[in-house]
Amino acid sequence: MRSRYCRDSGPLLAEGCALQLIALAPWPLVRAGDDLADQTCAALAAQQLKLQSGDVLVYAQKVISKAEGRCVDLRTVVPGARAAALALEVGKDPRLVELVLRESTRIVRTAKDVLIVEQRLGLIMANAGIDQSNVADPASGEYALLLPVDPDASAAQLRAALLARCGCDVAVIISDSFGRPWRVGTVGVAIGCAGLAATRDLRGSGDLFGRALRVTVVGHADEIASAASLLMGQGDEARPVVLVRGLPASAPHQRAAALLRPPDEDLFR
Amino acid sequence: MRSRYCRDSGPLLAEGCALQLIALAPWPLVRAGDDLADQTCAALAAQQLKLQSGDVLVYAQKVISKAEGRCVDLRTVVPGARAAALALEVGKDPRLVELVLRESTRIVRTAKDVLIVEQRLGLIMANAGIDQSNVADPASGEYALLLPVDPDASAAQLRAALLARCGCDVAVIISDSFGRPWRVGTVGVAIGCAGLAATRDLRGSGDLFGRALRVTVVGHADEIASAASLLMGQGDEARPVVLVRGLPASAPHQRAAALLRPPDEDLFR
Repeated sequence: MRSRYCRDSGPLLAEGCALQLIALAPWPLVRAGDDLADQTCAALAAQQLKLQSGDVLVYAQKVISKAEGRCVDLRTVVPGARAAALALEVGKDPRLVELVLRESTRIVRTAKDVLIVEQRLGLIMANAGIDQSNVADPASGEYALLLPVDPDASAAQLRAALLARCGCDVAVIISDSFGRPWRVGTVGVAIGCAGLAATRDLRGSGDLFGRALRVTVVGHADEIASAASLLMGQGDEARPVVLVRGLPASAPHQRAAALLRPPDEDLFR
Repeated sequence: MRSRYCRDSGPLLAEGCALQLIALAPWPLVRAGDDLADQTCAALAAQQLKLQSGDVLVYAQKVISKAEGRCVDLRTVVPGARAAALALEVGKDPRLVELVLRESTRIVRTAKDVLIVEQRLGLIMANAGIDQSNVADPASGEYALLLPVDPDASAAQLRAALLARCGCDVAVIISDSFGRPWRVGTVGVAIGCAGLAATRDLRGSGDLFGRALRVTVVGHADEIASAASLLMGQGDEARPVVLVRGLPASAPHQRAAALLRPPDEDLFR
């Protein structure tokens, strides 16, 4: 690896030693039924960029959910007794809590302003990933946006559509921002994946001195999602799609579900 | 933001819409007393790179610890009774467990092969961050590498040294790989910071429709550490230092300690 060098825009770079991240911006407001592969091709063209095989495209969950029509008008939601009681406990809108309960399999922790659940996909996250920001103009009503039904499938479909349009074998990650135990602040996490290894298992490879590495499973797709999040922003400058170029191919391809720790290995249930 | 475009190596890029990450490689084996600012300048020169103000340099904890002489010869460690009992429980070397206990303030979780503690800096992590890979040639004995005594101070010193050598106001992050509850695989995390905002607080900024954002503190330095980790590798291709270029300046500057969740807000003690 170290002996092969290539010249890329100036500096001498060893292969696999440089990454480029580019936000595809500006991105249009996404509505239910929109074709994200079309929007991706248009955004790339507007920035005079061409996809290359090996590129990774990271999509914020929000645009996937919107395109898939996962927006819910809160006026249509009637909270049940359990949601009403829980809403009182955590200080949240009972209609939102009703949606959280419908989208979840268990409650992990509650506190004032905090409702952490296991979302039906197995993701441990606040509010089952349901978001109320950037969803719709508040003048038109109150809306909430649910996670995609199957983000791994959404990623695979988008990857296939991009292959058909551009002839490029790219990987697709669908990302969301997750809070974490013990540490302040959210980080980008992969909730859907297609075309790459969600985890990289380095067990068995040696260290610098030939000693076997011990803790060496890396949350590869999560690290890519966090990197992309650096460009996405969260507010009115949102740039929901980021192109990542320069990652070595990774195998075997995995669903983001591979990043979920099995319950029997989970010390923090 | 969206109205200003610049041309940078081909594509049209809005300001703040592109990031470049470059591993400074090959990096020499680091020994106690080595001057990492010197090594950084040499590696940059070898790759025909010049630092720019605003650049962020991410250093793997391992090179900081080695330069600061935090390597311990396990033959010099005599495990106490508590370490011996705990070592039996978790199935680890009693001398390593003795070091973990010395470096920790409390035990968070134990299981077979698992010892998660609150390291004295407040970091919740496996084995108090003590590593035995890439430390020294096993033929010369068995060694373990402790975290730097004060990684925030190490980052600040390195930042000052780079400013003195290169005249560039760069930020420095010291990173390590952390396992996580609920999710498979480690991700890069910032354990030391200087010259940037470890967390970015977006509360108060509006969403696309002017609605106030709710959960909007971002673990900025952790996302940078995860991005850099994509290039670092873990094994015999280790590239322990990564240059990140293109991040907007962030303020106020914070220590990585700002990323530690206060115990009274911690639902997962």
